[in-house]
Amino acid sequence: MASFRDLSRASWGSEAWKALMRVRDAAPVVQCITDFSASMELMASAVMATGASPAMVHAVEEIREFTASRANAVCINVGTLSPEWLFSMKVAAAQAEELQKIWVLDPVGAGATKFRTAKCLELINLRPTVIRGNQMEIMALAGASASPNKDGSNPTSDGLEAAKELARISQSIVCVSGAMDLVTDGKRVLGVSNGVPMMHKITASGSAMTGLIAAFVSVHPPPRALEAAAFALAIFGLAGELGMEKASGPASLAMHLVDALHQLASEESLVTSRIKIGQI
Amino acid sequence: MASFRDLSRASWGSEAWKALMRVRDAAPVVQCITDFSASMELMASAVMATGASPAMVHAVEEIREFTASRANAVCINVGTLSPEWLFSMKVAAAQAEELQKIWVLDPVGAGATKFRTAKCLELINLRPTVIRGNQMEIMALAGASASPNKDGSNPTSDGLEAAKELARISQSIVCVSGAMDLVTDGKRVLGVSNGVPMMHKITASGSAMTGLIAAFVSVHPPPRALEAAAFALAIFGLAGELGMEKASGPASLAMHLVDALHQLASEESLVTSRIKIGQI
Amino acid sequence: MASFRDLSRASWGSEAWKALMRVRDAAPVVQCITDFSASMELMASAVMATGASPAMVHAVEEIREFTASRANAVCINVGTLSPEWLFSMKVAAAQAEELQKIWVLDPVGAGATKFRTAKCLELINLRPTVIRGNQMEIMALAGASASPNKDGSNPTSDGLEAAKELARISQSIVCVSGAMDLVTDGKRVLGVSNGVPMMHKITASGSAMTGLIAAFVSVHPPPRALEAAAFALAIFGLAGELGMEKASGPASLAMHLVDALHQLASEESLVTSRIKIGQI
Repeated sequence: MASFRDLSRASWGSEAWKALMRVRDAAPVVQCITDFSASMELMASAVMATGASPAMVHAVEEIREFTASRANAVCINVGTLSPEWLFSMKVAAAQAEELQKIWVLDPVGAGATKFRTAKCLELINLRPTVIRGNQMEIMALAGASASPNKDGSNPTSDGLEAAKELARISQSIVCVSGAMDLVTDGKRVLGVSNGVPMMHKITASGSAMTGLIAAFVSVHPPPRALEAAAFALAIFGLAGELGMEKASGPASLAMHLVDALHQLASEESLVTSRIKIGQI
Repeated sequence: MASFRDLSRASWGSEAWKALMRVRDAAPVVQCITDFSASMELMASAVMATGASPAMVHAVEEIREFTASRANAVCINVGTLSPEWLFSMKVAAAQAEELQKIWVLDPVGAGATKFRTAKCLELINLRPTVIRGNQMEIMALAGASASPNKDGSNPTSDGLEAAKELARISQSIVCVSGAMDLVTDGKRVLGVSNGVPMMHKITASGSAMTGLIAAFVSVHPPPRALEAAAFALAIFGLAGELGMEKASGPASLAMHLVDALHQLASEESLVTSRIKIGQI
Repeated sequence: MASFRDLSRASWGSEAWKALMRVRDAAPVVQCITDFSASMELMASAVMATGASPAMVHAVEEIREFTASRANAVCINVGTLSPEWLFSMKVAAAQAEELQKIWVLDPVGAGATKFRTAKCLELINLRPTVIRGNQMEIMALAGASASPNKDGSNPTSDGLEAAKELARISQSIVCVSGAMDLVTDGKRVLGVSNGVPMMHKITASGSAMTGLIAAFVSVHPPPRALEAAAFALAIFGLAGELGMEKASGPASLAMHLVDALHQLASEESLVTSRIKIGQI
């Protein structure tokens, strides 16, 4: 097998397929720490549909043991951030880092309040393997202005520069969701263009993406995390494309997307032919 | 444009359509404070389907900043009421009142326990723009007996009287959900008869209604809040009617209802012709 | 009517039908204490679809009054277990036991951490009417090793022996979910073989089952709880079989399952002919 760094464009699809099979076969346990309740159902369903096993465990009393003994990856979503939750999150993140387990951060709403931005930065100090957010969140975290770009200058490249800067500072893989998803380690950049616009109308589709990244990176850890994150985003986007063929709105799209994620595990030719990942 | 107070019956539909377009164009941020988890997903999906943007933010540390700087409306749902949550709710409500932002209260389960009734009344002292509940909740809050009417005397008119009384005492708009939804400011009363019976079998349809009211009232604030609340209830009910054409039970109805809410924004003739609002 | 203990195999279906009608007519209030958010929506929807009324109430300040005055059954799910929640759970369980109300325990993740196993055992000391878990959870609680049986010896009979032992120790009815669900009081054992494999891919299908057990046992309390639990599991499994006829993946199965639960109340012949319960 070619090393990931030498992948030709034509092989992204088959590598994504292999990654999906590895998730299915390894059935990694993804420990999810979130109390953003609206996001939990879709996140759990999406993670489970790939063959991984979501586990919502976050009492401080049991996090240490669970993270050490059961979790293959930890996924922290700061949705509804409170001091008690933050403490649990930090315990799990520190434990994951110490044990060299994968942990993935979803900095929901970074930039919306100073408290939230500050707390996300504290979590980033605990060295997540991957950070996934939208452009506003990533820009806020990179120290760029969180206000939308008003003057019409290229916001995508700003987002990309912010992502690369955050990746260099944090030494994490950084993913920025958007019309084209971007994945960077600060030097290399992959673009993923699977997906449909209506996915942005699904409550918590971002959280589901982050959960999938945790599952995929747990079976393809660094130095393959960059590619694994791209595979997760591409598979999620492809499931959205397939779901859109049956959907008539955002609620039916969410359902058909999860069904499609489940079906993709027996659709090798679909995955290999329709994954759209490119080096940027 | 005719003032809202002079609306003829024939114009309710076109005014409801304009209100929906205004929500879509303004994309108000609706800050939702609820830990009644079962309700969050449908509430968030329904609010998002109209074009508004739900935000679940309720840590005390960030509520003040978020409510002041980001939220266009605050929606407080007392589902699972605990002292810590109540404190966050009061901070947000007081902040909303001080900044003259819209805030809407869903007094879930008022009347079910003394604690719950008492805490809802404390929140009402912080002057919500709108209170929406079912007849039991509104009657409990108005000081009437919360026990169902056993003797067969007219419960609807009792509910209406309770609603008017609560509206006068609280100086809020009060909405009572039922076979016909009622909206009153203590003097005027609007009736909304869109909807289908199976909507009452959907978990948290009430919470979703309240979220929609917050979105609509944020773009049509007082003195137009009475009409805006009626528009929200009518649009939600119409989405239920359209969803029922495809549904085969309460779960598929919930999905088709959200899809229909999304589709209604491109269905002007449907909205203008099928909205059923009347002065009572 | 034959006593439940004398039921012939042929009458299980018609007894299950009568139990479903009793739930629908009595509309028991099932107080659900869980903050395992991903599970709440499906649990609430499934309980409501049978005609019962789910109520999420768990602030310590109101549990005593609610459990005493409103709840017909209490359903405790330890999903995301924290000390504060545990305290509310114990107050409700103790109250239910004192008032001789039905209470049902879902020991989610027992065996995954020592903390969780220990806390579940503390709850079991408060004498739940029914305990429902999967084989790993029940075996952990029965003191058996929680590690999966690696040597290929019969795991079902191990699970059954663990269930019987736990039932004898706890004096509760114990249900073990699996390809065939088992229900035992320590002496008698009923097997339920309704259901389809994909149901195990639905997030929180276990929690929904437990909610249904609470509803059914509340209208068929001890000494009929053994049969009532089997009826709930069989009705849930049958709804899954009907849902599977329309589903194309786990997300659409969840929706069609809830729709089918709602429809079953008008499908006497389906229920009476397809329920698969047997004495083991």
